[in-house]
Amino acid sequence: MNFTLVLGLVAGFLTTVAYVPEVIKVFNTKDTKGISLLWLLTLLTGVLLWFYYGVLIISIPVMAANGVSAFLILLLIFLKIKYR
Amino acid sequence: MNFTLVLGLVAGFLTTVAYVPEVIKVFNTKDTKGISLLWLLTLLTGVLLWFYYGVLIISIPVMAANGVSAFLILLLIFLKIKYR
Repeated sequence: MNFTLVLGLVAGFLTTVAYVPEVIKVFNTKDTKGISLLWLLTLLTGVLLWFYYGVLIISIPVMAANGVSAFLILLLIFLKIKYR
Repeated sequence: MNFTLVLGLVAGFLTTVAYVPEVIKVFNTKDTKGISLLWLLTLLTGVLLWFYYGVLIISIPVMAANGVSAFLILLLIFLKIKYR
């Protein structure tokens, strides 16, 4: 593991883990009124394009962070549709 | 401009612009109770590390997206301290 890879993974961990409390809150409260579906879909499109960008530049941190983010956003979209 | 660069810039635009409404809302309502300072500082650390990662791998989209994000987060931290 080189320095750049570790740096990218730590960066990705921090910016991705920041959204876990939000997902847990929605899970517990079942309240998704504060989150817009359009916003979730915009964000999902963005992280999927980031993931593809990570594949093209062969960056494991970009792929990992955006892969996990896409999973969290898909979970929120699922909860949004289930508890609307 | 090659395809990879454009892809990264579009991805960065989508994931960064998604946070502009939040900043505008805080600006207008002056209500920052819903945002934790610890959360903002975690996110700021993350995007600054991403920016540095972008410099090391020489990725303009990673630098641009996280530079703008850092600016937005610093603005929220400023509003949080001003309107607490």
